[in-house]
Amino acid sequence: MVVILKENPPKKQLSDLLRMLRNQGLQIHTANGIHKTILGLIGDTSSIDIGCLKALDIVDDVLRIQEPYKNANRKFHPLDLVVEAGGVKIGGGNFALIAGPCSVESRDQICSIAESVKKAGAQILRGGSFKPRTSPYAFQGLRAEGIKYLLEAKAATGLPIVTEIMDIFLLDLFADVDIIQVGARNMQNFELLRQLGHCRKPILLKRGLANTVTELLMSAEYIMAGGNENVILCERGIRTFERATRNTLDLSAVPVLHSLTHLPVIVDPSHSTGAAKLVAPMSLAATACGSDGLIIEVHNDPQHALCDGPQSILPEQFAELAGKVRMVRQAVGAKA
Amino acid sequence: MVVILKENPPKKQLSDLLRMLRNQGLQIHTANGIHKTILGLIGDTSSIDIGCLKALDIVDDVLRIQEPYKNANRKFHPLDLVVEAGGVKIGGGNFALIAGPCSVESRDQICSIAESVKKAGAQILRGGSFKPRTSPYAFQGLRAEGIKYLLEAKAATGLPIVTEIMDIFLLDLFADVDIIQVGARNMQNFELLRQLGHCRKPILLKRGLANTVTELLMSAEYIMAGGNENVILCERGIRTFERATRNTLDLSAVPVLHSLTHLPVIVDPSHSTGAAKLVAPMSLAATACGSDGLIIEVHNDPQHALCDGPQSILPEQFAELAGKVRMVRQAVGAKA
Amino acid sequence: MVVILKENPPKKQLSDLLRMLRNQGLQIHTANGIHKTILGLIGDTSSIDIGCLKALDIVDDVLRIQEPYKNANRKFHPLDLVVEAGGVKIGGGNFALIAGPCSVESRDQICSIAESVKKAGAQILRGGSFKPRTSPYAFQGLRAEGIKYLLEAKAATGLPIVTEIMDIFLLDLFADVDIIQVGARNMQNFELLRQLGHCRKPILLKRGLANTVTELLMSAEYIMAGGNENVILCERGIRTFERATRNTLDLSAVPVLHSLTHLPVIVDPSHSTGAAKLVAPMSLAATACGSDGLIIEVHNDPQHALCDGPQSILPEQFAELAGKVRMVRQAVGAKA
Amino acid sequence: MVVILKENPPKKQLSDLLRMLRNQGLQIHTANGIHKTILGLIGDTSSIDIGCLKALDIVDDVLRIQEPYKNANRKFHPLDLVVEAGGVKIGGGNFALIAGPCSVESRDQICSIAESVKKAGAQILRGGSFKPRTSPYAFQGLRAEGIKYLLEAKAATGLPIVTEIMDIFLLDLFADVDIIQVGARNMQNFELLRQLGHCRKPILLKRGLANTVTELLMSAEYIMAGGNENVILCERGIRTFERATRNTLDLSAVPVLHSLTHLPVIVDPSHSTGAAKLVAPMSLAATACGSDGLIIEVHNDPQHALCDGPQSILPEQFAELAGKVRMVRQAVGAKA
Repeated sequence: MVVILKENPPKKQLSDLLRMLRNQGLQIHTANGIHKTILGLIGDTSSIDIGCLKALDIVDDVLRIQEPYKNANRKFHPLDLVVEAGGVKIGGGNFALIAGPCSVESRDQICSIAESVKKAGAQILRGGSFKPRTSPYAFQGLRAEGIKYLLEAKAATGLPIVTEIMDIFLLDLFADVDIIQVGARNMQNFELLRQLGHCRKPILLKRGLANTVTELLMSAEYIMAGGNENVILCERGIRTFERATRNTLDLSAVPVLHSLTHLPVIVDPSHSTGAAKLVAPMSLAATACGSDGLIIEVHNDPQHALCDGPQSILPEQFAELAGKVRMVRQAVGAKA
Repeated sequence: MVVILKENPPKKQLSDLLRMLRNQGLQIHTANGIHKTILGLIGDTSSIDIGCLKALDIVDDVLRIQEPYKNANRKFHPLDLVVEAGGVKIGGGNFALIAGPCSVESRDQICSIAESVKKAGAQILRGGSFKPRTSPYAFQGLRAEGIKYLLEAKAATGLPIVTEIMDIFLLDLFADVDIIQVGARNMQNFELLRQLGHCRKPILLKRGLANTVTELLMSAEYIMAGGNENVILCERGIRTFERATRNTLDLSAVPVLHSLTHLPVIVDPSHSTGAAKLVAPMSLAATACGSDGLIIEVHNDPQHALCDGPQSILPEQFAELAGKVRMVRQAVGAKA
Repeated sequence: MVVILKENPPKKQLSDLLRMLRNQGLQIHTANGIHKTILGLIGDTSSIDIGCLKALDIVDDVLRIQEPYKNANRKFHPLDLVVEAGGVKIGGGNFALIAGPCSVESRDQICSIAESVKKAGAQILRGGSFKPRTSPYAFQGLRAEGIKYLLEAKAATGLPIVTEIMDIFLLDLFADVDIIQVGARNMQNFELLRQLGHCRKPILLKRGLANTVTELLMSAEYIMAGGNENVILCERGIRTFERATRNTLDLSAVPVLHSLTHLPVIVDPSHSTGAAKLVAPMSLAATACGSDGLIIEVHNDPQHALCDGPQSILPEQFAELAGKVRMVRQAVGAKA
Repeated sequence: MVVILKENPPKKQLSDLLRMLRNQGLQIHTANGIHKTILGLIGDTSSIDIGCLKALDIVDDVLRIQEPYKNANRKFHPLDLVVEAGGVKIGGGNFALIAGPCSVESRDQICSIAESVKKAGAQILRGGSFKPRTSPYAFQGLRAEGIKYLLEAKAATGLPIVTEIMDIFLLDLFADVDIIQVGARNMQNFELLRQLGHCRKPILLKRGLANTVTELLMSAEYIMAGGNENVILCERGIRTFERATRNTLDLSAVPVLHSLTHLPVIVDPSHSTGAAKLVAPMSLAATACGSDGLIIEVHNDPQHALCDGPQSILPEQFAELAGKVRMVRQAVGAKA
């Protein structure tokens, strides 16, 4: 950590600061510039609150040099993490195709789509039972009933399932769910993250619409600090001024995350773009820049879906896309 | 609602669509352009899912003409709502000064600051007991103990208190809290909003960092749809590319919200700017453009605060600011 | 165009509006809703100023249904445009690899890099002579001298060249340049665009940092309206809150643009990310989602470049990347 | 400047770097941390290119401690600059009300509005002759003729005038213009800025839609480096995801700029909000947080304006607003 002091700090305040820092076990190197003095703090600075330091009258700026996350930091975990869910591996060269409808609508619907996407190459089934809808008047999902149908689809096809949790009081319902998803709007629901750190299920953590890559890693750190290391990160678009797509898919985040963390990183081309015709090109792009998987909305009847819609593709389109994804993976030299 | 069709829609699909819409009790006016046909839907369209309509092959675009919120809509509630909390009124010409530390740190600290801000003109005391911190290693607040101290400060000063809830399972702890705050990161925690709709306490709903004014109103609608009409909106800065301030305070949202809703609107100049020296000018600006109140961080010892920091001002600075706020209110013709 | 009227418009104002619209040769279809009346305008609305209509007291909202661009609109130009520059084709299945240093620094430097990138598979040479630098104290490019060196490199290698213009008074210097680049900061320098519409050289138009896809197309329309149809669009990152990359590369813009326009679309992975290690993954991603080319910064000595820097790769890295790009193109079924 | 090295830098590369830095006349203080070494560079670092340093293999990060602008820096110019234009003072406690139509449409129009706004308290007349329009098919302004009419309005009323330049080749037309405006889209048109540095007229420099406060100051620095110190800065809204207003007016930029620079700072509430009804509240807010002036669109017939529109207010509204602005200035203790 580097502390830049304002010009001519009063002696008393400076010695107070130095004593406070040394009391925390830090060594201090001082460099006196013409205008400003710079302190280099050496030692474990993770307990130092940057805000507190910046609040001091004599401090101009404070710069953290070490990343503020440890469990999620590749520096301390050089090998890719392989997360396993219901027999399917994600990360470390293992690519996962996750597919299914936006919402579970009925037993027939989810079982039928599950069969279709399995045949087309999906390894994991997705489907929303609890739906975070902007409007209280919109369909909120089948809730507990939806999870029941998902489990039936799992039993019928053997596909592990991933579905979203919206509050920790619902956790019991997720006992047989293979991967628990934390949605973009809950990425900084810290009470939820903390509780999920105490379970041992893989967590699919989606990036918030206005959250940085570092904040995504800090949210992963919340889960991991509780003892649950099975976190899969998901880029799903950020909010910008552009309106041609629902959100702006930030694919650079894929290689950036791979350099910062050993956790698997997947991409959601459906919600980020909000347009069925963009799902295929953005899936291929995500694959080409190293994504460890894709989570894609597939519906057998998008025209009559309750809340799925513009971003869902048909099973046959998914099957064709799955084939192209495999070819791109070969082209970029990924594991077969 | 206006539905714009693609060129030359197949007859069968068009008649299917028209029948579906008429089945929902809607009247349809059709305007045939040279390239496109436009359908005007007349009747209650609140149950129509725009996404579904857009997903149809023959539909080019769908435009909602009515706002999607009702309880929070000024059209149906032309008179300003006055929210009352612990004897203090907010809205409808009643201006509320809310002040206190970022975090409750000890009984002495909160009681001492409560006395100071009361003397300086604050009508409500704020203080965080549950702190949504980006890092799991940062101070997370005194939690239940913090609320106990807040209640002691309330007893000692008579000031009603506002403090943040982070999960619905904590609600019992808020029995004697006067206003429950929903923080920016929970603005779209829909399970929490839904539950708060069932209580009768005033809710201070902060705008999310990447949320539009319309989404803020939809979140208010969640609470109000449950029967709790006592919602106070709070502008607290949005996330942009600018880094000179922590967030970008969107003061235009104040008059915009006043035109769209009858709910009171207050402003948080502390968290939005993240800088003590900006609190006074932005408080005056917020007052000048019609804010119904301010929520300001005040600390008696910002240099040693556990997590308060750059954005806290001292009680004497708050007292001076309170005087200027009164003068600006007179200047713009607000109620005394 | 659809005009939504406010409730109960005064008769006089309404008839004034209808007469004004009919005077412009438009037919009007009226749909009366319960609360609002909707006018559908049929005919050529390109001369209607939306702002003017919105300013009318009786108008609630105005919605354009036709895109505001014509020359750049795929609807009227269904076939991909192939732009030809110095014998190299771009677009319509023709993929162009453009490479070279950020800045031309010397005759030796540009000639040496030109040889290297040609050998590695580049078809066009890039290099900046006029540099738009944020600081007036930073190196501003070799200016006229830089263009001289570029032309020498062109003569030596046969590679056509692309370089940036910063003001129309410099146009004479670009007589032998093959493609004139308009940089992101000049995307809405309308006087410059207008003048470039009068020349016949291909224009490489970069998207502005805060500009939408529609605005990029409107800027292309400025050039094309002047008679110059040879416009190549370039996605080079937009400005968001994320700081892990210099800008956020918006790759979804590639398929979006391909659906809206027949103009070729290329991607700049160097400036958008600002990081050498991200150039390869984002180049492959851009290729996978259908980019018609890449413009990549290559330097033979990035450690000692005058202003190139973090985003430049070495010739041998470029050569390796060029090979992978070819393989990804095959994988996604592009022309060989 | 602080340079943070990567772990275990090779000796040869480190000594190369140190020699290079010492050759530039810099002193170097070294602090060895457990993982990283930090170099503090002491001396004039303005010629150092951060990008170059960052490109070095052994460098992890580089941090500038001094602001990169000098002429525009309050540190070296502690007293507020007072810019004088046609006898009107702006800055240093002098508040300027600038008003007029978006576009000059005719001699009668501009002269009539000029009379109205003068009577209402405006000290400077604004009006666009060259209009930066997104569409090539929209009205582009009366150009030279518009400036002629502006000068007639100036002769008739005695009001100094401000109007926008769009390219340096037009400069001769501005000989009798009192303040030359550089629009948001040209804020980083560096050739234009450079040339305006050679004239001695006051320049009204508008912030770009995606530009930071620091970049605005760097653009002012371009002008000032040429010898023209008469720069007035203007906040006019930035581009964000919010759509309730045309742009997001960043009023915090006013006090932030006042702390960083001695240049006057004014606010444009018309273009930023794009809505007439928001002009008054945001003008009052801008005044309350210390703006040195306002530039407001006023039209005598907004319903029939050629391109003005939603954001223009009527002369009588402007007169009422001017009175309130004066009262807010008194309330916040500004000069009478």
